[in-house]
Amino acid sequence: MANDTSNTTKTSNKMWGGRFSAGPDAIMEAINASISFDKRMAAQDIAGSRAHAAMLAATGIIKTNDAEAIREGLLTVLSEIEGGTFEYSAALEDIHMNVEARLKEVIGEPAGRLHTGRSRNDQVATDFKLWVRDQFDAAEESLLALIRALLAQAEAGADWVMPGFTHLQTAQPVTWGHHMMAYVEMFGRDLSRMRDARARMNECPLGAAALAGTSFPIDRDATAKALGFDRPSANSLDAVSDRDFALEFLGAASICAMHLSRFAEELVIWSSAQFRFVALSDRFSTGSSIMPQKKNPDAAELIRAKIGRIFGANVALMMVMKGLPLAYSKDMQEDKEQVFDAADNLMLALAAMEGMVRDMTGNRENLAAAAGSGFSTATDLADWLVRVLGLPFRDAHHITGSLVGVAEAQGCDLPDLTLDQMQAAHAGITEGVFDVLGVDNSVNSRMSYGGTAPAQVRAQIARWKEVLE
Amino acid sequence: MANDTSNTTKTSNKMWGGRFSAGPDAIMEAINASISFDKRMAAQDIAGSRAHAAMLAATGIIKTNDAEAIREGLLTVLSEIEGGTFEYSAALEDIHMNVEARLKEVIGEPAGRLHTGRSRNDQVATDFKLWVRDQFDAAEESLLALIRALLAQAEAGADWVMPGFTHLQTAQPVTWGHHMMAYVEMFGRDLSRMRDARARMNECPLGAAALAGTSFPIDRDATAKALGFDRPSANSLDAVSDRDFALEFLGAASICAMHLSRFAEELVIWSSAQFRFVALSDRFSTGSSIMPQKKNPDAAELIRAKIGRIFGANVALMMVMKGLPLAYSKDMQEDKEQVFDAADNLMLALAAMEGMVRDMTGNRENLAAAAGSGFSTATDLADWLVRVLGLPFRDAHHITGSLVGVAEAQGCDLPDLTLDQMQAAHAGITEGVFDVLGVDNSVNSRMSYGGTAPAQVRAQIARWKEVLE
Amino acid sequence: MANDTSNTTKTSNKMWGGRFSAGPDAIMEAINASISFDKRMAAQDIAGSRAHAAMLAATGIIKTNDAEAIREGLLTVLSEIEGGTFEYSAALEDIHMNVEARLKEVIGEPAGRLHTGRSRNDQVATDFKLWVRDQFDAAEESLLALIRALLAQAEAGADWVMPGFTHLQTAQPVTWGHHMMAYVEMFGRDLSRMRDARARMNECPLGAAALAGTSFPIDRDATAKALGFDRPSANSLDAVSDRDFALEFLGAASICAMHLSRFAEELVIWSSAQFRFVALSDRFSTGSSIMPQKKNPDAAELIRAKIGRIFGANVALMMVMKGLPLAYSKDMQEDKEQVFDAADNLMLALAAMEGMVRDMTGNRENLAAAAGSGFSTATDLADWLVRVLGLPFRDAHHITGSLVGVAEAQGCDLPDLTLDQMQAAHAGITEGVFDVLGVDNSVNSRMSYGGTAPAQVRAQIARWKEVLE
Amino acid sequence: MANDTSNTTKTSNKMWGGRFSAGPDAIMEAINASISFDKRMAAQDIAGSRAHAAMLAATGIIKTNDAEAIREGLLTVLSEIEGGTFEYSAALEDIHMNVEARLKEVIGEPAGRLHTGRSRNDQVATDFKLWVRDQFDAAEESLLALIRALLAQAEAGADWVMPGFTHLQTAQPVTWGHHMMAYVEMFGRDLSRMRDARARMNECPLGAAALAGTSFPIDRDATAKALGFDRPSANSLDAVSDRDFALEFLGAASICAMHLSRFAEELVIWSSAQFRFVALSDRFSTGSSIMPQKKNPDAAELIRAKIGRIFGANVALMMVMKGLPLAYSKDMQEDKEQVFDAADNLMLALAAMEGMVRDMTGNRENLAAAAGSGFSTATDLADWLVRVLGLPFRDAHHITGSLVGVAEAQGCDLPDLTLDQMQAAHAGITEGVFDVLGVDNSVNSRMSYGGTAPAQVRAQIARWKEVLE
Repeated sequence: MANDTSNTTKTSNKMWGGRFSAGPDAIMEAINASISFDKRMAAQDIAGSRAHAAMLAATGIIKTNDAEAIREGLLTVLSEIEGGTFEYSAALEDIHMNVEARLKEVIGEPAGRLHTGRSRNDQVATDFKLWVRDQFDAAEESLLALIRALLAQAEAGADWVMPGFTHLQTAQPVTWGHHMMAYVEMFGRDLSRMRDARARMNECPLGAAALAGTSFPIDRDATAKALGFDRPSANSLDAVSDRDFALEFLGAASICAMHLSRFAEELVIWSSAQFRFVALSDRFSTGSSIMPQKKNPDAAELIRAKIGRIFGANVALMMVMKGLPLAYSKDMQEDKEQVFDAADNLMLALAAMEGMVRDMTGNRENLAAAAGSGFSTATDLADWLVRVLGLPFRDAHHITGSLVGVAEAQGCDLPDLTLDQMQAAHAGITEGVFDVLGVDNSVNSRMSYGGTAPAQVRAQIARWKEVLE
Repeated sequence: MANDTSNTTKTSNKMWGGRFSAGPDAIMEAINASISFDKRMAAQDIAGSRAHAAMLAATGIIKTNDAEAIREGLLTVLSEIEGGTFEYSAALEDIHMNVEARLKEVIGEPAGRLHTGRSRNDQVATDFKLWVRDQFDAAEESLLALIRALLAQAEAGADWVMPGFTHLQTAQPVTWGHHMMAYVEMFGRDLSRMRDARARMNECPLGAAALAGTSFPIDRDATAKALGFDRPSANSLDAVSDRDFALEFLGAASICAMHLSRFAEELVIWSSAQFRFVALSDRFSTGSSIMPQKKNPDAAELIRAKIGRIFGANVALMMVMKGLPLAYSKDMQEDKEQVFDAADNLMLALAAMEGMVRDMTGNRENLAAAAGSGFSTATDLADWLVRVLGLPFRDAHHITGSLVGVAEAQGCDLPDLTLDQMQAAHAGITEGVFDVLGVDNSVNSRMSYGGTAPAQVRAQIARWKEVLE
Repeated sequence: MANDTSNTTKTSNKMWGGRFSAGPDAIMEAINASISFDKRMAAQDIAGSRAHAAMLAATGIIKTNDAEAIREGLLTVLSEIEGGTFEYSAALEDIHMNVEARLKEVIGEPAGRLHTGRSRNDQVATDFKLWVRDQFDAAEESLLALIRALLAQAEAGADWVMPGFTHLQTAQPVTWGHHMMAYVEMFGRDLSRMRDARARMNECPLGAAALAGTSFPIDRDATAKALGFDRPSANSLDAVSDRDFALEFLGAASICAMHLSRFAEELVIWSSAQFRFVALSDRFSTGSSIMPQKKNPDAAELIRAKIGRIFGANVALMMVMKGLPLAYSKDMQEDKEQVFDAADNLMLALAAMEGMVRDMTGNRENLAAAAGSGFSTATDLADWLVRVLGLPFRDAHHITGSLVGVAEAQGCDLPDLTLDQMQAAHAGITEGVFDVLGVDNSVNSRMSYGGTAPAQVRAQIARWKEVLE
Repeated sequence: MANDTSNTTKTSNKMWGGRFSAGPDAIMEAINASISFDKRMAAQDIAGSRAHAAMLAATGIIKTNDAEAIREGLLTVLSEIEGGTFEYSAALEDIHMNVEARLKEVIGEPAGRLHTGRSRNDQVATDFKLWVRDQFDAAEESLLALIRALLAQAEAGADWVMPGFTHLQTAQPVTWGHHMMAYVEMFGRDLSRMRDARARMNECPLGAAALAGTSFPIDRDATAKALGFDRPSANSLDAVSDRDFALEFLGAASICAMHLSRFAEELVIWSSAQFRFVALSDRFSTGSSIMPQKKNPDAAELIRAKIGRIFGANVALMMVMKGLPLAYSKDMQEDKEQVFDAADNLMLALAAMEGMVRDMTGNRENLAAAAGSGFSTATDLADWLVRVLGLPFRDAHHITGSLVGVAEAQGCDLPDLTLDQMQAAHAGITEGVFDVLGVDNSVNSRMSYGGTAPAQVRAQIARWKEVLE
């Protein structure tokens, strides 16, 4: 049996041994090279370089035919990358050098003129901003799709009653549509946050050069415009050392992931045998290797967990940036993997949640049954005492409490009490009180703006549909 | 000597013993009551209640004279609180019950009518939003003051040369004004972030009641307007369970604290005996208990550290909110202390940084000397080769590297090389090259938009002054 | 109504205005002074100084009667602090200067000899270590109490059956005792973690002086021993700049808080109307201001939330320490409040959890009913097919799945199927199969070490009782 | 130029479009499958299965020849994996199913018997624990290598003087060896922390099955022993839901990364033109694309940054675990990538730091010059006043301060003052005072245990060498 141990040990020793025996040069390459991850910015890098080359020609800094050669050559490199035939080299460290080296092979001497009036620092910042900007757009698209799925659920169940919980205890009846619309508000704020951040970050660092700007007569407005930026960034030191846009993306993504975690938690609880409020579709659930009867809400659980890595990435990058002097420090190379991973997982979680929401089926019957139990209309009784009998709220609260006690003692719910029992608690109570103790009456009565009444819910659905058009 | 040990032990045992012997009721009070911290929201609570009472009267839900009694009584309570004569009770748990109980003592029965059509859930949310909104305003004020202090420094030293660093290695000469303006850009983004977040959060939860809205015919627009909100929040479930506004404040505060940590790090390094780039004023420095000669940049170090607790608060609240089902859960009571502490420390750090910036004196001589060493104009040489001789940038880069090697070998800097030495590296080099090797020429040449040339810096100062007017 | 707005605004403006008008000196005092929080280390500071004075006399560095005066005087100061008559001064910045200044008032000139051969840096490190060491001891005491409460619950319900969940779906029946013992294991690891960390940190920094040690012939072994340390720390630079002990406390506290959050989550879910697995006592629950029927698991929710501030403190201190050069930097003053708050809240959460566990009542009937539903013994069926019929596990798994399908289709559970139906799935099935389909048989059969069988649970209880003796 | 924009947009749209058009099944596979990362545990999975099969045979649960077939077949699968010929399938979700499916192809029917008496839950836990245990061992190995490199530096420069900093201000002279030994202490604690955690986690979950244990008569001691564990875990619920070992690894790794960040920060500062305390080797530095003269301390900066992702992983996993009910939830699948990434980066950072330390050259001359400036021996003067003249420390401190003022005013250092000037401050001062004002005398005098005197440093080096043997 000792074999097993030694096998494990050997396997891992070989692995570690290999790593450690690598020697200083291999270690430096491993820690320093970024090509393994920054190749994801190839399209952005090439777009940035093409815009730069065109500007260099337009301003007369390089010759037009050199610029044309560069721009054509870059398209060739791009198609090699997209076609999967490009050979990345770790010795060339990053995507920028990989592309430029290949460009030189393709077009020769003019390739060496591309880097005029820029530096790797502003080039990296530009590429990364373009990449992150795409994520804001992708997040917007994903959020809109999720909101639409929630609106469809809200519309279908605008008047389904269900328990409204506080502390996971039944508090008051609400409507399914109202609950769905709560998440529409949350994801709507996420949308707004993503848009604000995208607008704020849309300034172009290209032309900031290493950190001081350049003595070449470049036209930063031109490159900014060509790349879809609103304007060039206003300080070259800041331009190359700013990662606010990445942090703000991670911050907005984290709050969004928090919203997802809350809904996912509810779906897990609602799927339990004890709740049975909702049935998730088979395709977002899985079985068990040992318990054939299980149908697990895997997608919901995985979505719930995504906040971990997304906010973990936020922490990671914030720690990296803490206390860094200006301008660029190599520490900042640790920015990309965090954002790549967080963005991928945010989009995945949003898509999975959208799919789950589209597929899920609320169990109207169970929801209604649960809504009616647990003295859920006690507040309606108290409000009736205030509204009809003119009692101060605090007194009405007290009388309601005593009637809940009576009902609990005899194992029934509030509507099951007799008028006599009611009047024993307060002589002024009349038959009319029973009108507010039903669950449907309860939700229908909550007509305050933003309240749970189906009519209010439908009004909010209509408002959102208008917003989304 | 054993006495010492037993003293320590006894002291702490007594402390812990006391804690543990407290018994369950004391433990529950300790973990449950929030009055020790939420009393900071007293003014907000009273403003909210006064608006609510006025609306209840205006809509006929309570009588006008009851509302007047309530509104007057609340002013009395407020003046007791402001005057320090109010007696808080932990048995009453929170600020809301403390105020209401005192109101009852002051005005009697009508006090019981105040809580009509609202709940503690929307009341807490409203109070806390009002408090956080004040922080956005305070942050804006503090950021503006800091930006003005930086502008003053930038203006005074718009053309002072200093080393621009990357990797804390001299890269190229920049100007003091340019460096200051980099922080203006950062704090400017912070300002913009605070404003966006403030606009997004300015919806009023009051009237959402416990979670479902209310059957009373309340006028949420009226209370929203009275409290300075743009509109009532649109979903009552969301209104009582949303803490996005607090998280977004913490997120914006964290990025701002990160900027502060970077500048603080620079000030610490610049204050070292090895750099001597800046002299901080005595009032933001302190001495040592054992080393009489020390003048420590304490304020800078403490500012550098503030990102810890501010971002720590962000982590704390994000963890609290993770996976919470709707609507209100008691977990959310852990929101306030985090935001209070983060806000206090952000404002303190901004004020201290503003003070330090106002007081500090750049050492123009040392800055200039450092700017001129370390081959800092190598890029200028390379750019000259491209611009004047038409070499591809990559070739120019190579030639420059070899000339740096020559200079390094003979222990001089680039301007000290002879024309012959220059021409040995490339025959086409002419006398003109020496024009670009001086530090002042270097910074003056960086006239690209956002570049370090004094003229560019002054243009940015002018733009910011206009923005701030 | 406009009054409300202006009131709010005025209140907060006055507050902020006050803060901002404070001027630089007030700002520096606010950011620099630590007496508002480090006074919690008064007892530790005095114990450290008394040990130091005794050692100075024993080594002949100061005179014995000076040392006696100091040691007596410090006891006087301590009793003033404990008695609440000590007047703290913010101008004296911290607890160390406050104590020493008062000592000088009490005993005069010899007070000035106390600081010989030490510095504030090693003094702070020593005081803080003593304080943190007390927290390790307090955590140990609290954990032991909680483990005992869990053992009592486990013993009482060693054979109560309940559903074992994975994915919050019923998986297999387990026992209440087994579930309680899972937490005993977790808190047991917390205990072990606290003990390891305490042992590692128990080295005395006193005598490291500012950072370099001292030229006085001090006896560091003597002070270390007097203060209950295992030895003096071995490097003076490290001694004054090390905060590992605080970080390790926060790390261990965070994992412990995570365990608490998991149990708290279960208690919240188990207390819901849908589960009703457990009844929490009234004293750890509260009511609602608007819904008289509610009984909310407040303590459980608050405990669940504590991981936020505890781990937030860990993040905060880790960020503070990131990238700090040796030796002491003022940033490190931000260590204490984080640890104080985390320790207070950990002890509070542990005490509250212990109280809740002692008071709570498992609902044996509901637990058993839930355990028997949801095909929870499907695995037992599969295992029977392997054990008795010799089928490969994967085949048995498949047959069991089909039988679950049959049962589900006719709305019954596995024990309700007929032998014919069983044999239709596999001809070899015999009557004996029904023996393993009962919930009690199921749990009794899980006799593997650490399994859920009551006998195994009781063996583990016995093992733990022995460990705790 | 508009082409550039549309190119960017098109590229990314295609990417996102592809992602979104994937449809629910592709989304579920993307979020659910773990094979892309858990294949790193292949060796561990096979070792665990081989131990399990051997135990099943030894206890008679399966036949010996079946077990032999399984154990041989698994070796075949392992060699396919190691040889790179294994074809992973995402449809089979994870490494466990991939291995088992291939085993079935290789050996047929007996493969179906392997999963008897275990479940994927305990299998995953076992595999992951084996993997993490390897990381503790790798960390130990890496830490030992780094400590040895530091000891070599300490030995070489045991008596080199350099400034000891607090607040990055010169405080007192220390020795290079002493500074290196401070890090030996830190990494020594890391070592101790890793060892404690490894010992605590070394309990085997295998046999816990899904969550309840099993009814098969398995021998958990046998599998535990075969896999190098100290014992089987004592509670099956805990065994499958525990991730403490991963969190504790991340916690220990984070503190270690914090130590690395501090040393890296120092190396960056020491490498600056202003300090020039150290020269890093070329292989751990890089040049600039635009500034040919730069030699950047890239490795140090990247090491400084690693705390971000390592502690970010800690945050991520802590958030995932927060509030998870027992036993296994799918959320926990998010554990591995975090630990993989953190472990890889810790080992890389340790190896890079070790390489840098081995290669770096302290600049003895510059260190000494800096040590002697800035009144660094002021404390020595104060101590002399106490020791020789018997002044109270506080008075000596005051006199020293005034002499520093005198020296500062005339632009000299303390040893440059005349005896007359000294005596003007205190009449009792004699010639002897000049003995302690030299830097070498200063460090030699710091003979307290753990002090900076070369003899003390050498004693600590000797102690550590003994420990490491």
